Amino acid sequence: MKRSPEFSLQCLQFMVMVLSILFTGTEAGRLDIPRLSPTRGTLIENPEIMSSKAVSDDLQTFYYPQTLDHFNYQPQSYATFEQRYVMNFKHWGGANGSAPILAYLGAEAPLDGDLTVIGFLSDNAIRFNALLVYIEHRYYGKSIPFGSREEAFKNASTLGYFNSAQAIADYAEIIMHIKKKLNAFYSPVIVIGGSYGGMLASWLRLKYPHVALGALASSAPILYFDKITPRGAYFSVVTKDFKEASETCYRTIRNSWSVIDKIASQPHGLSILSSKFKTCKPLKSSSELKNELGNMYATAAQYNQPPRYPVTVVCGGIDGANEKQDILSKIFAGVAAYRVNRSCYINQPTNGSETAVGWRWQTCSEMVIPIGIGKNTMFQEQPFDLNSFIEQCMRLYGVPPRPHWVTSYYGGHDIKLILQRFGSNIIFSNGLRDPYSRGGVLENISESIIAIHTVNGSHCLDILPEKESDPEWLVRQRETEVMIIKRWIAQYYADLKAILIKQ
Amino acid sequence: MKRSPEFSLQCLQFMVMVLSILFTGTEAGRLDIPRLSPTRGTLIENPEIMSSKAVSDDLQTFYYPQTLDHFNYQPQSYATFEQRYVMNFKHWGGANGSAPILAYLGAEAPLDGDLTVIGFLSDNAIRFNALLVYIEHRYYGKSIPFGSREEAFKNASTLGYFNSAQAIADYAEIIMHIKKKLNAFYSPVIVIGGSYGGMLASWLRLKYPHVALGALASSAPILYFDKITPRGAYFSVVTKDFKEASETCYRTIRNSWSVIDKIASQPHGLSILSSKFKTCKPLKSSSELKNELGNMYATAAQYNQPPRYPVTVVCGGIDGANEKQDILSKIFAGVAAYRVNRSCYINQPTNGSETAVGWRWQTCSEMVIPIGIGKNTMFQEQPFDLNSFIEQCMRLYGVPPRPHWVTSYYGGHDIKLILQRFGSNIIFSNGLRDPYSRGGVLENISESIIAIHTVNGSHCLDILPEKESDPEWLVRQRETEVMIIKRWIAQYYADLKAILIKQ
Repeated sequence: MKRSPEFSLQCLQFMVMVLSILFTGTEAGRLDIPRLSPTRGTLIENPEIMSSKAVSDDLQTFYYPQTLDHFNYQPQSYATFEQRYVMNFKHWGGANGSAPILAYLGAEAPLDGDLTVIGFLSDNAIRFNALLVYIEHRYYGKSIPFGSREEAFKNASTLGYFNSAQAIADYAEIIMHIKKKLNAFYSPVIVIGGSYGGMLASWLRLKYPHVALGALASSAPILYFDKITPRGAYFSVVTKDFKEASETCYRTIRNSWSVIDKIASQPHGLSILSSKFKTCKPLKSSSELKNELGNMYATAAQYNQPPRYPVTVVCGGIDGANEKQDILSKIFAGVAAYRVNRSCYINQPTNGSETAVGWRWQTCSEMVIPIGIGKNTMFQEQPFDLNSFIEQCMRLYGVPPRPHWVTSYYGGHDIKLILQRFGSNIIFSNGLRDPYSRGGVLENISESIIAIHTVNGSHCLDILPEKESDPEWLVRQRETEVMIIKRWIAQYYADLKAILIKQ
Repeated sequence: MKRSPEFSLQCLQFMVMVLSILFTGTEAGRLDIPRLSPTRGTLIENPEIMSSKAVSDDLQTFYYPQTLDHFNYQPQSYATFEQRYVMNFKHWGGANGSAPILAYLGAEAPLDGDLTVIGFLSDNAIRFNALLVYIEHRYYGKSIPFGSREEAFKNASTLGYFNSAQAIADYAEIIMHIKKKLNAFYSPVIVIGGSYGGMLASWLRLKYPHVALGALASSAPILYFDKITPRGAYFSVVTKDFKEASETCYRTIRNSWSVIDKIASQPHGLSILSSKFKTCKPLKSSSELKNELGNMYATAAQYNQPPRYPVTVVCGGIDGANEKQDILSKIFAGVAAYRVNRSCYINQPTNGSETAVGWRWQTCSEMVIPIGIGKNTMFQEQPFDLNSFIEQCMRLYGVPPRPHWVTSYYGGHDIKLILQRFGSNIIFSNGLRDPYSRGGVLENISESIIAIHTVNGSHCLDILPEKESDPEWLVRQRETEVMIIKRWIAQYYADLKAILIKQ
């Protein structure tokens, strides 16, 4: 299989999108989303996630003629587009033995990067004798309706089909298609996803139990909708991560914002800040700097993973600066420690990545994750304002978001009350250092809807490739997940046998 | 509440639609659906179902501005239409005590008739201290998008939004809206439906467990899709019903078709048949007669309910005819016994009822129920031909059906394997004399996904009003259903209490 030159990782991108909306929102309420950390940049900041045992030679790419609109019967709904999926048969036990299928559900990015980065599949194929399947999300990568990205992203009329219910139906259809094609009707399917893709995995299990036997939903903040999770939770955790890493670092950051504001308000203030932070272009506003710093802290917290622990890196820079330096020099030392060896450090050019463009629509239609910044964080307060969010989306697309649709269609309120006697076979995994974990499921719901969290884990860490340097708690988390999924599959085979004997 | 002059009952209409497609299909494959037994005619044939204890004065009508397309974000998807629902607060225990809500889900007809005919709600309101809610299905009655029936039914572009997934989302939204409006967030909701509406009830519970605590799905043939149920099952049961009522009657009917064909092929044959059967208009083909007879036998079997037992009535006519009369005179005696005191008996004018027009679209889009007639019935063999069915729908609407969508979205294959450890709180009730029961769930799936059937029951009998004359097995069936639902609700209240205490 030809590998795309650009790698991506949904788990990373998911958060960056949300943050950018938030931070850029500070500028007089403008929804200035394109200013995003590009994927490449994010990956460079986290180079260790690139490794994997996956062998690309074993991957085969396929295309499925996917229905444009599963829930409508207008003539145009029948249009199809080529949806990409990739399979790896190397370790599969085959249809005769109804050997398992591990299906990774793509999220808000092209699929290419996931093929080597989603270690949970490549590392476990041999343990499960599993067929590996990776499916790309509609409107990303090579799975674009209307013939071209230009057409597909033209306006709300072509973007209207770009939503989670359609995407989950796509996945269900492709999985059924694969099973039929391979004559593997009774092969149990486990769907796996991270972050937004983790939500999709858990929702697919809930909506299509006949398609997936179980789901591993890694770092899926399915409760970060409506007001189920306090809106300030995300930045409370970012703050906590920094405070626990270093009290002085936390205080330095907390005190830095007013200093930035003060300097910015002085004559030539922006040019002083530009020079101090070695920005790539002269700053046009202090928000530009504050957004990027905030984004960096949040990214470091969300992906605060071993062995590097970015929060420790940033705080190492800040705390390691000369005691006599001014506060902004210390902050810059933190930036420089994290973003090593750059020619410039702030407002690097954004490339309007597929993820940026796609996720902007998704958040402006249904994925309204209302993250704000409350009191008592190391950031300046900034409540989420739904009305201005709606206005901004209206201005961008001409249609308003449906902020309650996710909880209407998928639920979320009182999840334990609802699911403790309904549904089964979902693992919600989280790392508590990940600020998104606060919108995740952190308590067991039933005997088979399980919450697994690690105190020191970060965003989607469990589904990344196994490494020699992995701490013991991470090894154990993954082992537990594999053990639980093996139990589901064993139970399924026993049920299948009992039913076939009866027939 | 103003009562509509015309009454209808989904449970009745559901079958008539399917049969008409089938029988008219004999004519050189034409899909000549408008030739249907009108609702009124069907009701006249079953006058006993009209009674009810419901007091219409307690009914209040409301309209909800419903979203046209829940699964799409094109500008036109945001259009709304007024969806009708009706509530009866008389026996409700109120929001403070989280008293239950019984919600009837309308099917392929205007809601008006259901308000008095769905006894399960009116009879049980007092037993549950329940709020009664009746919701009309989109594209029927007063719940018409696009401002008028004419616009809404113009072509596939306006009909495209007319499908079960959208309808179920409508119901979910209205139920959530009602709970919010009444501050009854923790009131448990039981959804109830019959036939197609029963499918919707079971599917709503499966897809929206956060909206409905449980479902009573009466005579819901959710397995009569794809090839899960043998295609000939329906007419095998019709045949069995007649054979068990009277072996001679069964033989007379079985032998009558070739006699009709033979006479029809003779000079003036059609006029002989027209006169023999006192047709309303001269017959244009023998199929016209055979369709109507077949439809009548099937209707009699499906609604073979006490105290009248239509199959016994028909066979009483046939068997009671003079032994020396010719076979077609005996058949006519059966018709005359069933359709008493008519001025004419065959090819009565059809009125293109809402149900006829609406269900024709629904079967031609997603509700492809592949009923055919196999060998060894009392009918002439007539296999279901999917290809010609698709062609006919294409000709009518310009878009093809999606015959596998129902099982893709809702499942159905290996239902016990899939649901024995997933989902809860559904009653599938059936009467085994109902030919549709063969496409229903007849075995318990789990401890709380329960199949209840009665050997002598007919289509939707359990949700019709209680009557003094009800046989003991019917009384017991209804008592069992009420007891099970009470158990769900008690369990729910216990769960709710435990969770609230913990908080």
